Amino acid sequence: MKGYVFHGPGQSAWEDVPDPAIKEPTDAIVRVGAVTICGTDLHILKGDVPEVRPGTVLGHEAVGEIMEVGSDVRTVRPGDRVLVSCISSCGRCRFCREGMYGQCRGGGGWILGHLIDGTQAEYVRVPYADLSVHALPGAVDDKDAVLLADIFPTSYEVGVLNGRVRPGDTLAVVGAGPIGLAAIATARLFSPERVVAVDRAASRLEAARKLGADAVADADEDPEQLIADLTDGLGADVVIEAVGVPESFELCTRMVRPGGHVANIGVHGRPATLHLEDLWIKNVTITTGLVDTHSTPTLLRMAAAGRLPTSQLVTHTFPLNDMEKAYDVFSRAADTGALKVVLGAPSHEDLAVPTA
Amino acid sequence: MKGYVFHGPGQSAWEDVPDPAIKEPTDAIVRVGAVTICGTDLHILKGDVPEVRPGTVLGHEAVGEIMEVGSDVRTVRPGDRVLVSCISSCGRCRFCREGMYGQCRGGGGWILGHLIDGTQAEYVRVPYADLSVHALPGAVDDKDAVLLADIFPTSYEVGVLNGRVRPGDTLAVVGAGPIGLAAIATARLFSPERVVAVDRAASRLEAARKLGADAVADADEDPEQLIADLTDGLGADVVIEAVGVPESFELCTRMVRPGGHVANIGVHGRPATLHLEDLWIKNVTITTGLVDTHSTPTLLRMAAAGRLPTSQLVTHTFPLNDMEKAYDVFSRAADTGALKVVLGAPSHEDLAVPTA
Amino acid sequence: MKGYVFHGPGQSAWEDVPDPAIKEPTDAIVRVGAVTICGTDLHILKGDVPEVRPGTVLGHEAVGEIMEVGSDVRTVRPGDRVLVSCISSCGRCRFCREGMYGQCRGGGGWILGHLIDGTQAEYVRVPYADLSVHALPGAVDDKDAVLLADIFPTSYEVGVLNGRVRPGDTLAVVGAGPIGLAAIATARLFSPERVVAVDRAASRLEAARKLGADAVADADEDPEQLIADLTDGLGADVVIEAVGVPESFELCTRMVRPGGHVANIGVHGRPATLHLEDLWIKNVTITTGLVDTHSTPTLLRMAAAGRLPTSQLVTHTFPLNDMEKAYDVFSRAADTGALKVVLGAPSHEDLAVPTA
Amino acid sequence: MKGYVFHGPGQSAWEDVPDPAIKEPTDAIVRVGAVTICGTDLHILKGDVPEVRPGTVLGHEAVGEIMEVGSDVRTVRPGDRVLVSCISSCGRCRFCREGMYGQCRGGGGWILGHLIDGTQAEYVRVPYADLSVHALPGAVDDKDAVLLADIFPTSYEVGVLNGRVRPGDTLAVVGAGPIGLAAIATARLFSPERVVAVDRAASRLEAARKLGADAVADADEDPEQLIADLTDGLGADVVIEAVGVPESFELCTRMVRPGGHVANIGVHGRPATLHLEDLWIKNVTITTGLVDTHSTPTLLRMAAAGRLPTSQLVTHTFPLNDMEKAYDVFSRAADTGALKVVLGAPSHEDLAVPTA
Repeated sequence: MKGYVFHGPGQSAWEDVPDPAIKEPTDAIVRVGAVTICGTDLHILKGDVPEVRPGTVLGHEAVGEIMEVGSDVRTVRPGDRVLVSCISSCGRCRFCREGMYGQCRGGGGWILGHLIDGTQAEYVRVPYADLSVHALPGAVDDKDAVLLADIFPTSYEVGVLNGRVRPGDTLAVVGAGPIGLAAIATARLFSPERVVAVDRAASRLEAARKLGADAVADADEDPEQLIADLTDGLGADVVIEAVGVPESFELCTRMVRPGGHVANIGVHGRPATLHLEDLWIKNVTITTGLVDTHSTPTLLRMAAAGRLPTSQLVTHTFPLNDMEKAYDVFSRAADTGALKVVLGAPSHEDLAVPTA
Repeated sequence: MKGYVFHGPGQSAWEDVPDPAIKEPTDAIVRVGAVTICGTDLHILKGDVPEVRPGTVLGHEAVGEIMEVGSDVRTVRPGDRVLVSCISSCGRCRFCREGMYGQCRGGGGWILGHLIDGTQAEYVRVPYADLSVHALPGAVDDKDAVLLADIFPTSYEVGVLNGRVRPGDTLAVVGAGPIGLAAIATARLFSPERVVAVDRAASRLEAARKLGADAVADADEDPEQLIADLTDGLGADVVIEAVGVPESFELCTRMVRPGGHVANIGVHGRPATLHLEDLWIKNVTITTGLVDTHSTPTLLRMAAAGRLPTSQLVTHTFPLNDMEKAYDVFSRAADTGALKVVLGAPSHEDLAVPTA
Repeated sequence: MKGYVFHGPGQSAWEDVPDPAIKEPTDAIVRVGAVTICGTDLHILKGDVPEVRPGTVLGHEAVGEIMEVGSDVRTVRPGDRVLVSCISSCGRCRFCREGMYGQCRGGGGWILGHLIDGTQAEYVRVPYADLSVHALPGAVDDKDAVLLADIFPTSYEVGVLNGRVRPGDTLAVVGAGPIGLAAIATARLFSPERVVAVDRAASRLEAARKLGADAVADADEDPEQLIADLTDGLGADVVIEAVGVPESFELCTRMVRPGGHVANIGVHGRPATLHLEDLWIKNVTITTGLVDTHSTPTLLRMAAAGRLPTSQLVTHTFPLNDMEKAYDVFSRAADTGALKVVLGAPSHEDLAVPTA
Repeated sequence: MKGYVFHGPGQSAWEDVPDPAIKEPTDAIVRVGAVTICGTDLHILKGDVPEVRPGTVLGHEAVGEIMEVGSDVRTVRPGDRVLVSCISSCGRCRFCREGMYGQCRGGGGWILGHLIDGTQAEYVRVPYADLSVHALPGAVDDKDAVLLADIFPTSYEVGVLNGRVRPGDTLAVVGAGPIGLAAIATARLFSPERVVAVDRAASRLEAARKLGADAVADADEDPEQLIADLTDGLGADVVIEAVGVPESFELCTRMVRPGGHVANIGVHGRPATLHLEDLWIKNVTITTGLVDTHSTPTLLRMAAAGRLPTSQLVTHTFPLNDMEKAYDVFSRAADTGALKVVLGAPSHEDLAVPTA
């Protein structure tokens, strides 16, 4: 089959690789119908994630069809249309039993496209299939569903739920890339009074407005002052960090009100400065986290009910074979305006126009 | 009357000052029966708290008797024996209505011995008396009660409750000074499986053991390894910072398990480094806070029921007039072994031996 | 002035009464701009609330202007436009300090139009004004604001918050009168997947649909089966009781799923049967409660932001002098289709057509 | 092998039955080392639990040694000493994924000695072994450990955690049989100010005192008044029902304070009257539930640390072969003073005296 293979920093290709096969009785083989590219994949390509060995097929998000299951798999069967979660769960370890699948000690966690071959391929082997894939309601099409593999549960759990967004809150989201935009979209499930998006790119702020941001601020034009003006000088109830650099995190800790929450979603490569000389007295709660995907069943129900604007984040669609082109478009987001690119899913245009 | 007056960095004296008088109808005048000295008072003396103006009477903790109340005071009356809380509460602002008295926007918060004259005197004016003093049960003697003005609610709220200590937890407390020791004592209300105290002073680790620490570690002898050994390498469920320096805070963030809590109690003067490059993926919750004293009624009930080892923290008692001597002993804790010093309360020896 | 006075069961009149005056330094006198009638007022008229003494002016909901304040009132002043909450709060008792104002032990709680003269009059004395009235944002007009005095916080706190409605939930609301409708409206702040309204009156079910119910069920046509069909036989995540009769409560306990919540808002006059022989094993949580109005500031912000459909519940408006007519219309809701009637607030028609 | 077989109401015997064998790859076979008898077993014998078919081996609590495991079992292996939980968990269904194993929809829940053969035998087949047995720390002996199969997690989860016992609370426990006593013991992990035990049997009240009750009340001598006296008339913060009859439940709802919790543990066969005419206004939370055993790992740690007084509940020990005698002693608890009887575990006397 074809797969997108990492060959070391700066080297990768859509190329022939062996078909995956069942290795453990808890495995499933999934034929990939739709897949997307994550910012993390770009980090891997740059060499920032050294535990990814050359030769690994990338990708940790997919929608597809079950082709084969191991002898212990009970909840799905061949022919089922499923969502492949970015997180696998052994279901037996302490963390899985507490719903913290991202911290799985039993061989799960984030493994696809990281420690084992991933989803950017025609087929993928999914370990612990019973707890790591989700049967898809017919009402959710592939392009929407694939965003529930990672970006939506990540934004919702690590941003919105950790940040404890509540009705009436002022929420600031720093970073209006795909993750920040999904945080805006899912924060609205808790009806904040207002959502303020902060970014440097006007196009992303425009996207934030479309997804429901009530106000936007250029990161270089004193977003702290805007938040202060909107909140009688108190600060935001919740601030979500969706960039992953120290400056952004530090901005978040300056924008939060006493008693408020800073929820970090960003993937950081460097330490930040925590101004405890100001913060010790402020009753602030700061959270970090890898997604657990415990919210995926809830998000699937919401998507099926038409209550999640998933497709608004998809700016580009490609056939699966155009993986290299899709990577190119996604990696040059500043030029291309890419938010999420989806491969393999028929676009609405495709669906609307008979191919004959 | 006599009071302990701050005259600028390095200058202070127990000297004559005018008697306080009712200024607002919500005020009460309290005759001070027992008072203690806080580490924060030492910071003020050094000049670290610039908003304290020369001429201010220090002190924010006391037990005493109500002498006079303003016309709006309803819950206490002259003759009542009361605890004067370190935090005053206007009761009307947004934060007070949510129980966050420490963040009061209506003229309360930490004001005694800070923005107005405090408790280290023969009499003190207490604003917002209805919400800022607590009638004392007879079963709690002065020496125990005065520790409920600040150190016990601080340790309990900002350490134990913010840290969400639960039955069965492994808890590490970094810093076994008075605040850390009170954190150990109040953490036991939630029955952790084990409490590990970390400090550099053997005498403090010994005190920690007496207050219920199950294990102790010298801060210089790899406390991280001890925690790892005790927890199958996972880390502590809860880590409480009770020192207030960057090194200590950073140690805390290395000792916490995935999904665990770091509760900062320490008063910091410098920023710390937050290693987000390690922590972003760890589902860690970090909290900071000034005490609100919302727990004081609960702690008073527990003290009255004999369930708080308050008096174990009192190493020295003095007559009120020996304020300067008490400061000297408290400020040289490394030499004197002082934990908490209490002035004014008759010691048990005093009570036992008639002075005639 | 004029006021609506209860003279014993079945007897009441809009008649001359003495003007109220400041009695306590914490009082305020409010000129009533808009007022509404509550189902509880009808109960009082029937004699179901024996602690209401003949001679009492009824009403516990109002919007108006502060005319005079006692010497201790600090947060409002004459000329301020305010919401008069149905619950007064002394701010000093144990319950007020915990935000449970409805259980106030210091002379507050539900007193207006119950233990003291109420708001269905030209002027009303409001005790504990600092904590019992709320300054009104200009963006909220009288007719909307007056619904935040009781019905919206009641539905939100006692129904939605107690019931812990969460994104993705199936919520059943039994009773689509004003309280049930407000529960539907405020539940949507937490984005349930679907809301099912149950009632006997087709007109109320129609109103429920307009306020956002996704499905409706006639109470006599097996609503249990509908819920079961929608939830794979499990039952609703949350069921809100908004009728106040045993049959309705018992229906709620049959419709809830294992692990779900039944939140009772209904005012009951008779005991219900609790089928513990079925429920003991089901992990069900049942809550009851009088409103505390701790959520009023949040709801006011949401109303000002245009996020609460308050005015949709107002079916009739009257001048204040038409109190008796308004009671007649409200008490014959089955015939008149009345949901909430508002007196005193200019209707939009009035505003649109100059009176000259 | 031998097993204790139910043959219909009133008929049962310790008799020869076939040895169990692995049926599913997730099964384990456990050689029973220690077992106890539950009040529920007596209900089954009386015919109160009709879904138990004649021919079923009873018992749902055991400690033993793994003899054999199915091909999918990964967390335990032959030779491991384990606790057999009263609840089995499929680990895959919605409820198991949320930690509500008692409500398992995948073939687990309470099945041992109920829907399949149980633990009162020499060997038992345990389905879903990975999630339904717990490896035992050496520090916990059989007699203590077997109480963690059901009674301790039941009391802790359904009583103490559902009731939200907090430091400083007044807790009333109605019913001082084994479950009530275990509730008293585990409630102490949260340091209530006082625990009041209510029962009719003086011997049980005496046992309650030994386990930490601060006060006791004869159920016939106005326990409501005692609670009122202790709480300034307010009522208990938390009331735990541990009897299972309507009168007891109704007493609980009269003893709880406004804002308090009633946690029902009792197994009820008849409906109770819920006095909503009094309770609707009281902000009361009532919970029910079957145990989930999600707390078992925590309780095991606490037991290993010597922090649970499990053995104090064991009044009688027997060899496994004395099952019929043990049932006789347990079923005549009023005469024999039996709390928990344990079979198979060597008593401390046995251990101390060599059998030679």
